[in-house]
Amino acid sequence: MTYNEIISLVKERKSFLCIGLDSDPQKIPQHLHKYDDPVFEFNKQIVDATIDLSLAYKPNLAFYESSGLKGWQSLDRTIRYIRSLNKKIFLIADAKRGDIGNTSKQYAKAFFEMMDFDAVTVAPYMGEDSVKPFLSYPGKWVILLALTSNKGADDFQFFEDKDQTKLYQRVLERSSLWGSKNNMMYVAGATRAEMLADIRKIIPEHFILVPGVGAQGGDLQEVAKYGLNKGCGLIVNSSRGIIFASDGKDFAEKANEKALEVQREMRSLVG
Amino acid sequence: MTYNEIISLVKERKSFLCIGLDSDPQKIPQHLHKYDDPVFEFNKQIVDATIDLSLAYKPNLAFYESSGLKGWQSLDRTIRYIRSLNKKIFLIADAKRGDIGNTSKQYAKAFFEMMDFDAVTVAPYMGEDSVKPFLSYPGKWVILLALTSNKGADDFQFFEDKDQTKLYQRVLERSSLWGSKNNMMYVAGATRAEMLADIRKIIPEHFILVPGVGAQGGDLQEVAKYGLNKGCGLIVNSSRGIIFASDGKDFAEKANEKALEVQREMRSLVG
Repeated sequence: MTYNEIISLVKERKSFLCIGLDSDPQKIPQHLHKYDDPVFEFNKQIVDATIDLSLAYKPNLAFYESSGLKGWQSLDRTIRYIRSLNKKIFLIADAKRGDIGNTSKQYAKAFFEMMDFDAVTVAPYMGEDSVKPFLSYPGKWVILLALTSNKGADDFQFFEDKDQTKLYQRVLERSSLWGSKNNMMYVAGATRAEMLADIRKIIPEHFILVPGVGAQGGDLQEVAKYGLNKGCGLIVNSSRGIIFASDGKDFAEKANEKALEVQREMRSLVG
Repeated sequence: MTYNEIISLVKERKSFLCIGLDSDPQKIPQHLHKYDDPVFEFNKQIVDATIDLSLAYKPNLAFYESSGLKGWQSLDRTIRYIRSLNKKIFLIADAKRGDIGNTSKQYAKAFFEMMDFDAVTVAPYMGEDSVKPFLSYPGKWVILLALTSNKGADDFQFFEDKDQTKLYQRVLERSSLWGSKNNMMYVAGATRAEMLADIRKIIPEHFILVPGVGAQGGDLQEVAKYGLNKGCGLIVNSSRGIIFASDGKDFAEKANEKALEVQREMRSLVG
């Protein structure tokens, strides 16, 4: 999906909502355990109930790997199912991968060839050659970690040089030369919305994936205030707040309601 | 496996060799493709030919994920096979994972519960809460990226503060407070052997996993000179130089020869 196609999709759906399919098998409703593949069934119903309100889905790989082979099977089936709907949607593998060039190439193959993701989240610590292999796929995206929303972000991301440039700023400055707004996005946490203003100074045009609206405590109005640009430029994620809105048989209905709530707020922001 | 058990194993095998099972399906010998699971067959024969010369095996997950479900199956079978041999061996998932606490917990489950690894490599960018969940398993290990052996290491790992502390030094200093020499190790690249001396000042007792001896150009004598401590303290990896020593039917025999060469050198260093 190209930069302009994403912008068109935002306008069409009037939404920049990303739903995090962090489908922890321990947390999905009990009644689904009668299915062969409860996690897939859960994802399928969530997707059916929310796809017209969403710009993107973002399964976090950890919640699938933790079930071993079965988990990979659920993930694979989920991606195939979403693609089979023939609806425009941006699919993000939240994998936080990154390795030496030769090896990152294999990860790129995993997410862009074996599975039909549009984007993969990548950790920046190993630098340019760990990121570049992901950028060689036309229409595919790297979403690089810049400023994360967790407490541990303080440990290294704010490490600063003698000119008071912080590590996350250095990551933005340097990595933005490796690709362009057409194949790179950045993760910047919503629990630090006011910092989006600083980030926008370094990358005015790139899309920013904002995790943490909902369970992690971010606020959509704040995020929009500091992060929106003329082409929207934001993909805002909510995971638990939507997919686990109910743990009963009405989970998909409740997910729809929660997604609709967020989308209504977004509609007024991008309308 | 405990710190002292690893030291005992080094003494027993007279080896601190780790063999990287980066078993790229494109690179394994042709004649193996007649098997149902060529990658597993390759790994099995490599392990049979080298386990008595080795301290550890380290499959890099990327080379399995890139084959999708089939790849995970090969990995799972490999780990089960190695454990079925009932020989002492340290198994490292070279996965370079790391996410917010809630999510890292799922990765820990994947590698320590679903698969019987002893250790997992973790990227430090997201800080303490991304690392801690891996440390709650007794006898299991985090191997945290500090100084990697690739060119891209220069992009951020040498970023320095006003006191000239570099990021990788900061990572060592801070993270060594999260665990101890009994549950944390560090990755430090062999292409920068002289830097191991500096690293030893910060973490005199921890084990260091040194990738890149062989194909990436590191030198074992140099690594030993700067990195050995009184309990050995080194796990030195070689991947392609051993597993792809031959692409013919004699691949396992040649892998044995190459491993023996390295182990002889190690024998004189730890004997």
